[in-house]
Parts: sequence; C-alpha cells; structure tokens
Amino acid sequence: MSEIRWPEGKAAAAAFTFDVDAESAVLWGGPGTLESVGARMSVMSHQAYGPLVGIPRILDLLERHQIASTFFVPGHTADRYPEAIRSIVAAGHEIAHHGYLHEQPTALTLEQEIDVLDRGLAALADVAGVRPSGYRAPMWDLSWRTPALLAERGFLYDSSLMDSDHPYELAIAPGADRSLVEIPIQWALDDWEQYCYLPDISGSGLIESPRKARELWQLEFDGLRRVGGCWVLTNHPFLTGRPSRAAELDDLMRYVLDHDDVWVTNLAAIAEHVRTLELSPRSITPPDVPR
Amino acid sequence: MSEIRWPEGKAAAAAFTFDVDAESAVLWGGPGTLESVGARMSVMSHQAYGPLVGIPRILDLLERHQIASTFFVPGHTADRYPEAIRSIVAAGHEIAHHGYLHEQPTALTLEQEIDVLDRGLAALADVAGVRPSGYRAPMWDLSWRTPALLAERGFLYDSSLMDSDHPYELAIAPGADRSLVEIPIQWALDDWEQYCYLPDISGSGLIESPRKARELWQLEFDGLRRVGGCWVLTNHPFLTGRPSRAAELDDLMRYVLDHDDVWVTNLAAIAEHVRTLELSPRSITPPDVPR
Amino acid sequence: MSEIRWPEGKAAAAAFTFDVDAESAVLWGGPGTLESVGARMSVMSHQAYGPLVGIPRILDLLERHQIASTFFVPGHTADRYPEAIRSIVAAGHEIAHHGYLHEQPTALTLEQEIDVLDRGLAALADVAGVRPSGYRAPMWDLSWRTPALLAERGFLYDSSLMDSDHPYELAIAPGADRSLVEIPIQWALDDWEQYCYLPDISGSGLIESPRKARELWQLEFDGLRRVGGCWVLTNHPFLTGRPSRAAELDDLMRYVLDHDDVWVTNLAAIAEHVRTLELSPRSITPPDVPR
Amino acid sequence: MSEIRWPEGKAAAAAFTFDVDAESAVLWGGPGTLESVGARMSVMSHQAYGPLVGIPRILDLLERHQIASTFFVPGHTADRYPEAIRSIVAAGHEIAHHGYLHEQPTALTLEQEIDVLDRGLAALADVAGVRPSGYRAPMWDLSWRTPALLAERGFLYDSSLMDSDHPYELAIAPGADRSLVEIPIQWALDDWEQYCYLPDISGSGLIESPRKARELWQLEFDGLRRVGGCWVLTNHPFLTGRPSRAAELDDLMRYVLDHDDVWVTNLAAIAEHVRTLELSPRSITPPDVPR
Repeated sequence: MSEIRWPEGKAAAAAFTFDVDAESAVLWGGPGTLESVGARMSVMSHQAYGPLVGIPRILDLLERHQIASTFFVPGHTADRYPEAIRSIVAAGHEIAHHGYLHEQPTALTLEQEIDVLDRGLAALADVAGVRPSGYRAPMWDLSWRTPALLAERGFLYDSSLMDSDHPYELAIAPGADRSLVEIPIQWALDDWEQYCYLPDISGSGLIESPRKARELWQLEFDGLRRVGGCWVLTNHPFLTGRPSRAAELDDLMRYVLDHDDVWVTNLAAIAEHVRTLELSPRSITPPDVPR
Repeated sequence: MSEIRWPEGKAAAAAFTFDVDAESAVLWGGPGTLESVGARMSVMSHQAYGPLVGIPRILDLLERHQIASTFFVPGHTADRYPEAIRSIVAAGHEIAHHGYLHEQPTALTLEQEIDVLDRGLAALADVAGVRPSGYRAPMWDLSWRTPALLAERGFLYDSSLMDSDHPYELAIAPGADRSLVEIPIQWALDDWEQYCYLPDISGSGLIESPRKARELWQLEFDGLRRVGGCWVLTNHPFLTGRPSRAAELDDLMRYVLDHDDVWVTNLAAIAEHVRTLELSPRSITPPDVPR
Repeated sequence: MSEIRWPEGKAAAAAFTFDVDAESAVLWGGPGTLESVGARMSVMSHQAYGPLVGIPRILDLLERHQIASTFFVPGHTADRYPEAIRSIVAAGHEIAHHGYLHEQPTALTLEQEIDVLDRGLAALADVAGVRPSGYRAPMWDLSWRTPALLAERGFLYDSSLMDSDHPYELAIAPGADRSLVEIPIQWALDDWEQYCYLPDISGSGLIESPRKARELWQLEFDGLRRVGGCWVLTNHPFLTGRPSRAAELDDLMRYVLDHDDVWVTNLAAIAEHVRTLELSPRSITPPDVPR
Repeated sequence: MSEIRWPEGKAAAAAFTFDVDAESAVLWGGPGTLESVGARMSVMSHQAYGPLVGIPRILDLLERHQIASTFFVPGHTADRYPEAIRSIVAAGHEIAHHGYLHEQPTALTLEQEIDVLDRGLAALADVAGVRPSGYRAPMWDLSWRTPALLAERGFLYDSSLMDSDHPYELAIAPGADRSLVEIPIQWALDDWEQYCYLPDISGSGLIESPRKARELWQLEFDGLRRVGGCWVLTNHPFLTGRPSRAAELDDLMRYVLDHDDVWVTNLAAIAEHVRTLELSPRSITPPDVPR
C-alpha cells in the first residue's frame, strides 16, 4: 500500500470520528431483538446517554480545540433525536451515513441492503437537510456489494476496511474503473472494546480505565504519524461521552494537536484530498479456495 | 439534561451504595437455576461472604468516615440474614428495595413484577421494620412499567437508569404528571465487572486488581465533580468486602471526602433534595421503528 | 466470623498451595470430553508442563525459601506422574486430595462422589504412600454432602469455601456435632483467571502479565494480614511454573516472608492448629426460597 | 526435561516467529464458515493487513536488527499473496509449514490431515520454491498422529507443543526410534490473546495496549534466559504489523539483542543445532483413564 502525499506539507493525518448509534446499535439483530431489547428501559437509557449528554459534551470539546469532526448517524438516531443531530450540523461538523437501524450489511439481502441505505439517506435529509458523502458500515461489516451501491448513490468515500495505514481508491468491484475513497479504520482505535458492557447484549464483561484506552490510542497515533498514515479514532457518544472518558479524550486531542506536522480534520476533507491525488483504484477480490 | 443546584453551595454529590445481593444474585434465573446453583455449596459460600464478612467491614469503614450510605437489600437476603440487615439499620444507613430474589423486571410478567415488589416490601418491613423510599432494579434492568408500579407504592426514587450525569424527575409514564426522582447509575461505577468470577454463572473470567478498579472509579469521580454531577458508586459486600478491595475503598472514601465542594450522602437525601427543586418531569418513550 | 488466635504470637497466616491438575483438569467434563480433549496432543502437553517443569521449579523455590507447602493432587495425576508426586513428598511437603479426574462434586451422584473420593485415596496411597488429611474440591465446587463424606473418611480439613477470612470448624451437616476444619479460599487468589488460556476449553481469552497477578495477590496479602486472616494462594504448576511467573512468585514469597508477624506454613499445620482451638462448629444451611 | 547446550557458549536462545495466517485463519471452520466469513469484506480486509502492510514492516524491522526469522505460511496465504511470500524468502528468512487453510489437525480425519499437509507443501513449492523443514500446527493443535506424518515427509522439526522450556527430540510415536525436533511454544508468547478482536469470530472482546503485551513477553524472555531455555515469540503480521505494536516489537528486539549471551536466530537453525546434540527421543503417550 503506497503512502499518501498530505496537504500543506503535513506528514500524516488524524480524525476524531463519532458513531452516534444510540438505541439502534442494540435494537437490530435476530428475530425478536427489537422487542426484547426495546423492552429494557435501562438498556435504552444507556444508549440514550449518547445523544442526551455525550453529544453536547463532545461538541464542546471539539469547539474548544477547533477540530472538525465526522459523525456517523444511523437514520433511526436522526429520527429519534433530531435536535441532537441538528446541533452537530450547526456546529459545522460532517454528518455521514451509518445505516438506518445499525444493520450489518453482510446479514442483509441485496434488497434489504438497498432499503436501509435509502432509508438512512432519507432520514438524514429530512432531519438535517444533509446529503452525506461518506459511509461507514455498522459493525464495520461491509459486504462485497456495498461499494457499488455507495457509488450508485454518489458517495465519495467509505470508512469500514482495515487493510491499510493510508487511504486509497477502492475499485467498486474487482477490475472496475469507478472507485470510492477508502479511509481505513481498525478495532484498536475504537472505544467499544474498552468501555462497552451491556449484560446479555454486548461487551466482554470487563470495563477498562480511560487511562488505558488513551494509552492505546495515543501509542497508535505516534505509530501512524511515524509512517505518514491516517489515524482515525472511532468513539461512541454513549460511551466516551462519560465525564472521565471525555476528559481523557480532551487530553488526547491536545496531544494530537501539539503535533504540527499532523493534519487534523474530518473524513470528508481527507477523502476530497485523496480524490485529488488521482490514485489508481485498487481491486480487492473475495478469497477463493481451490478444491 | 439540565444541571442540578446542590444544597449548601456544594458543586456536586457523591454516594457510596451497596447492593446486598448475597445468594439471591445467582439463585434467580431460568428453569432449574434455583436447584442447580443452590446445590453448589461453594458458590453459596461465595455469596454469603457479603452479609457475613463484607457488611461488618463496610459498616466499619462508613463509621470511620462518617458517611451515610444506601444499602439495596433483596427480600431474600433480609429473610436469610436478618441480623446483618438490622445492623445496617442500627448504624443509621438507608435500606432500599432490590427485588425479592434479585429478579430482573424485564423477565417478569406484570403480575410477577407486582408480586416481587410486594414480597420485597414485606420482607424489609418484617425483618427491619423499614418502608423503603428507594428502588434499584436487579441488574439495573428496569421495565417500562416499573416506574408506575413504584409510584403506586409510594416510592420517592429509583436508581436504575443511565441517561444522565444528574438526577431528574422521571414521569412514571410518557406524558404523566406524576414522577419519581431518578438517580442515574452506570456500569463503570460498579464492582461486578472488575471483581466477579463464578464459573458457569457470572463474570468475564478475569479478575482485576483493586488498584485498577479504584483508578477507574476515582477518575469518574473527578469527571462528575467537574460537571456538577452525581457520582453513585455501586459495590457488593460479597465482592468489595474482601480486605484488599475494602482497603482501596477506604482510600477512595478519603479521597472523595477531601473534596469539600462535594456533598457525600445517601440516595434518599439526594432524592429528597431533588424533589424540593420542583423540576419538570421528563418523559421517556420506548423506541419505535417505522416500517 | 470470629477471628483466630494464631500460634507463637503471630498476627496472621499464609499458605502457598498448588493444585497439580495436569491433564485431569481438562479431561473430565460432559460426554465425549475425555476422547475429544485427550486427542489434542498440544493441549495435553500444555497440562503436562505442570508435573514435568513446573513442579521441579516450584519445589526449588520452596526449598530456597524454606516454605512448607500443600499440593492438591488428583489421583489421575499421581497415576500418570508418580515420580513427580514422590518428589513432592520427598521434599517434605503435604499431599492432599483433589478428586480422581478433577471431578466437580456437584455434577456427580452420591455414588459417583464416593467413588472418586475412594479412587483418589487409593491412588495417593499406591503412588506416594500417603493418607491425606486435607481435601479441596475440583473447581472449588463442594456439594452439600461432601463434608460428611470427608468426615467419614477421616479427613481433618477442607479448603473449598469462600465465606470467611479465617478458618473455622464446619459442621458436616446443619446441626451436626462432628466438624471439619474449613480453610477458606477465594477466586482472586488463584492463578487460573490470570493466566489460563486453552481455546474452546478454558479461559477468558486474555492472558495477564505476572506483574499484575502479583500486585493482586500481594494487595490481598496485605489486607488479610491487617485483619489477622489466613491468606491461601492457589497456583497451578502448569501455569505458574512458567519462568516469568515463577520469578514473580519468588519475589512474592520473599515479600510474604519479610513479614515476621505472619505464620507461613502448609494447610495441614493450619488445620491442626485450628482444631486445638476447640471452636464451636458452624452450621451452614442450603438456601431456601419461600413460595 | 533436561537443559540444552547452546552453540558458541550462549546461555539461551530466542526466536521471533511469525504466523502469516491472513484470511485462512478465519475461513476454515465448521460447515458454512468459508462462505459466511468470506462474505464479510471488512473481516477479509482485517486479515489482508498482514501480507499487505504487516509483512513489509516486519521485514524492515528484521533487516534493521539483522535477525533471522521463521515465517509459518499456510498454503492459502502463499497462493493468494505470492509476492509477499517471495519477499520473505528474498530477505533470507525461513518459510515453514502451517497447513493449507489453517486447519486444526485434531478436527481432521487422517486422510484430510494428509491432504492438507501435502497441499501446503505443494503451495510453498509452487509459490516460493521452498521445501520447509519445520511445521507448526494451526491453533497449535497437534494431533497424536501428526508427528509421524511429518517425519514421513522429511520434516526436521515441529513447533506446537507446550511441555518444556527447552527443545527436545520427540519420538514420532510412543517408543519409536525416529524423532522430530520439538521447539516448544506457549500461549503467553503469542499476540492473538493480546490484540485480536473480530466480532462473532475471535477474541475475548478486549484489546490490550502494546505496552502490556511487551511487558509480558519481555518478562518471559528474562525468565527463560535465566533457565537457559528457548524463547519463541509468535506474532501475526495482521496484528503486530500495526504501527504501535511494531514499535514495541522494535524495542523488544533491541532489548533481546542487548543480551549477548542469548542466541537470536530462526527455528531451523535451532532445530539443526538440537539435532547435533543427539538427544534420546522422548516418548509422549496419550492419557489413559482406568475404569
């Protein structure tokens, strides 16, 4: 994977991104999930912390640090918390697509995958007047057909793959000319594994100290900076919005910004820059096993 | 969620609370749980450590620090360990409701939910002569109908939701005038995830050092203090009653008390204060998914 | 639970104990376990590390520190590794009972429970000429009938319950006159949770640093010492026998021995001392749930 | 297990080894695994990071430190990423056998086990012109018949057992004259438990900091060095290839090399040395349980 030329002589890029899953992250699943999980008022309140408390707190941090960020918003979250989503737009941040009810593309039929893409677009348009240029698959679980569906809908970029330290042009199908900008992510730069615990629903059962999470993310920032890569942190307002976690994020923002050679921005800006580089699209083929 | 005015010019509030689950926490569950788990003498002894050793040790700590605390007591624990429960009352602490056999409300029919509320009340009255004003759902798993059931029984507050840093008035049903004070909690301020391991029954399999647990809880105290919130620590005598964990709790109590601007008290006192603020009740509606 | 008077003016007691499970710990289980797990040569070798490498290394540590220890040996381990078990006896340490194939008593019928007790006794007698005075239930999973079965066979003590910081006399059935000395243990003073990983068989999937395990165990030593209790560490030669873990154990032994007010000995010596105190037996009754 | 005389007066040995599993590590499994996991583009990209980014980065580290290493390559990885595998050969490192599609031997029939051994050999020959002298069972899950199958195919060594700190000669069946050199490994010297998380597929759900992983591995290096043993670290390019983890590995390589009394080399060199010692083969017999 070749390196990227960053703008203004910067050596690397960094983005603080937020997945605003709220209730949707736990309501979608096998038969009966919606009813059984939706019946749990405390679980719902755990998720609601995101738009109710986490988003204002995070917007505040971003404002103080003057960081432009990307928020991935499921349509369901937009429909349930329109004011919260509009406050993100009003603060000048990017809104991007994250499914309707946080559906994992690989668990859907083609028809269902198209349906949730279109319902997500409709919700973001209705609630926030936004047409997103970016997409992130719920659970970072892209199907092989998602790239083409995104291209047909005019998306510029996706941020769900894990095979590079640098963004690249992803052919929407093996050998295709058309491409999306891919801005890779990774599990170690996510807060879910460090903080999430919902009995019977999600989490390892352990909850880490924000100090440990911050060490992990900061070490990888140092590492990606050294290789001229693109550090993309993914946080969830219902998790990282808690005061002590937000405080560590605050410190981490300061740390990242203290590095003048790093371009700190949102994913749309990164994708637009990458598009100007006119990179050759890269084809990825599904694995085959000879018999 | 709006901030709270605390009494006497305090900037924030803090409560050390204890869930006295003992055997009940593992005896309730699917068909056969009572018999199969009840047959395990060592598992029973693990839970019995709470009332037998943990409670006296914790009462001692609270006495030394002059902290008023809240103990959530399942009816079954009261029936099995009446002396332990009476010693809590005698020390001047608050007793609150925590089900009869630690039943999760969302797994119950309406009739069953009413039954365990009433049996829990009867046990606390019989054993300790107490009529509790507070309730905490076992596993923090409130059903949407629990608030109304609590209001009908004269409860002042609940402490099972997770959508705020501050207490609030919770409408007992969407749009209702009547309300309960809600004092929010969170999974990261619980000792179960850090310490509990019971093979085939509970726990991630890992057991953390008390140093790590204390760091986690102290950082969140610092964070909630900064935002004027209400820090509610939930510990279980059968877990945190162990000597090294109690020693860290001792230090943490000292740390919390060293902050003069924090009101350290029990949940009943917090709820009564909140009630005097005459806040508008907040309605929470179950999630809906358009089809 | 009342405190204990320790001999020679000591303030507390400490014992380093070892469960020599070897293959037995993973061969016993549901139908087909013996065949499917026994077919995994690497898994068997993971367990064999205990008697082959761990035991000599641990005997060396104990020799250097002049600590008398207790080794709980399943009959199967004795039959498969007679030399290793005889070397423990030759070094002057106590051998105690730990089932035949590491069977959890609560999963057995009464007939089966008797059978494995007697087969374990026979194996220890045959291999090492030993008649043990102590018993520890595999997985610390004592059944309510085990104490009586132990008393009938002349055992002095059990070490499988978790409801006290101090040893006590345990009535072999509720209200019975006859008793066993109980020397309590706890999950946090075990190395399995910190170190064990066997895919599809055991472990959380994480493996901790020996530094963290040692901090945990040392903090609890400090805590139990302060309350005059009995610190019982349980290590497995197949886990803690690894060089870096043994090195931390070495340091921990030094730390424990540096405390002159602590009686460091094996469990038989502790049980014999407790028996001289003529404590009243304590009855434990299975939990009951009124309907 | 007796100690080993190391060459040139060295006191111990150390090897940095890499399992180049890529997609194969998750594609093989029960019925439907290939199709369901292969359909997850993001999961595939997570694994592809190994050959695409991890291998060049690791080759770079090895070049800078002048360390000779061993790469265990499933046939499928060789077929899918021939250039990556050839780059390992070109850099002078050893290529060894790791199944075709990362099949666990104990889950295979004899016929299947033979088939994947031969297909793995064919792929390594076709792609890299290599005839490997070493084998490591996927998931370190050797069957009791694998040693004989390896000997029949002319392998010199295996590296999948866990019962020693030192290499030894392993009789290919109990009592057999013929033997393989066995170079033992252990779960604590693997990066999977520290770093791997793939929802629904693998991992505890937690992701550790590279600082913690490095402490764990370094402590065990110190320990094995003290006993004159053979430290074998197993890393996966798709995990440890990430920048911050590679940076810790870089530091760890420096630390290891700073110990002049340790022989740092690849497994083939260690196996060849062990073979010259003419050790008596050791027989391991499957466990038996008397009835």
